[in-house]
Amino acid sequence: MELLKDKIRREGKIPTDTVLKVDSFLNHQIDPSLMLAIGKEFARLFKKDQVSKILTIESSGIAAAVMAGLEMSVPVVFARKKKSVIMNEDVYSTQIHSFTKKETNDVTVLKKFLPAGERILIIDDFLANGEAAIGMANIVKQAQSEVVGIGIIIEKSFQGGADKLKSAGYRVESLARIASLANGQVEFL
Amino acid sequence: MELLKDKIRREGKIPTDTVLKVDSFLNHQIDPSLMLAIGKEFARLFKKDQVSKILTIESSGIAAAVMAGLEMSVPVVFARKKKSVIMNEDVYSTQIHSFTKKETNDVTVLKKFLPAGERILIIDDFLANGEAAIGMANIVKQAQSEVVGIGIIIEKSFQGGADKLKSAGYRVESLARIASLANGQVEFL
Repeated sequence: MELLKDKIRREGKIPTDTVLKVDSFLNHQIDPSLMLAIGKEFARLFKKDQVSKILTIESSGIAAAVMAGLEMSVPVVFARKKKSVIMNEDVYSTQIHSFTKKETNDVTVLKKFLPAGERILIIDDFLANGEAAIGMANIVKQAQSEVVGIGIIIEKSFQGGADKLKSAGYRVESLARIASLANGQVEFL
Repeated sequence: MELLKDKIRREGKIPTDTVLKVDSFLNHQIDPSLMLAIGKEFARLFKKDQVSKILTIESSGIAAAVMAGLEMSVPVVFARKKKSVIMNEDVYSTQIHSFTKKETNDVTVLKKFLPAGERILIIDDFLANGEAAIGMANIVKQAQSEVVGIGIIIEKSFQGGADKLKSAGYRVESLARIASLANGQVEFL
């Protein structure tokens, strides 16, 4: 998606060879018109897949997921992150480790919002090691629903998460795929 | 806003006389088309106020804030919640206590996304005791920017936050104002 790649080129910051900061338009400040364009692109990519619900995770996936939900006329559920949760029969939960934040969170979705038999599109802002997407797919599996695809805004292809998900049989659609962040330069695949 | 009130009447759950659960369309599952309607209504209410930026707080304010930002063609910044933050000269921060969750969070915004002289519309999903809105207004004050108004999706008018904010001189626009939740019934003002 050229609009997104241009934005990354112009505003992305690269503090280390593995970190891309896009907090000026994606995960702290948000550019609403870019989110709408991203939502439209996800809707286009998955238009034949009879998506019945979108699943994302708080907080940075919400804006794009809601725009995709608007375009596709389906509800969005955002999984909740908590340091630790008292297990509860009303929720599906899984643990997700963030290598960036060096923390593990319990992530939960109320069962009533993820009944069996749904066709779920997972949306997230970043795909690095794949922990968040695998966690969400795990929740969908618990719910006996189907993951029809995983929509990612920015994939750091060099970190292996996309390969891992594809090997597990998931369809991954990333709007910007980054081959390298070495030497302070963004190189797209 | 009738559309919102109807949705609250149909889907809101009232486990106690002070709690309204709207997690089927607002703060766990999200109804994207309702969020768009809410964004349009905020845009209408504040169209003469030369809003330059919207400030909200993760996670439940984001969807409506992004729709309002889309309608008003302004960026959205969401404040980050953390149990405790190492103070940092790059951020504005304040403490916000949640009576519902019985926890106090440090809430931060990177200074670079809140320069002086902005005209800020604060948006949040709920207004109860006013802690979150007052905290965000405090951050705007630290930034030497102006709060042009506070847009609330659901105001629990019986809990005093709206009165407190109005007494402090803020303009509060709430799309649904709840007078009472007694006896499992929603009564609007």
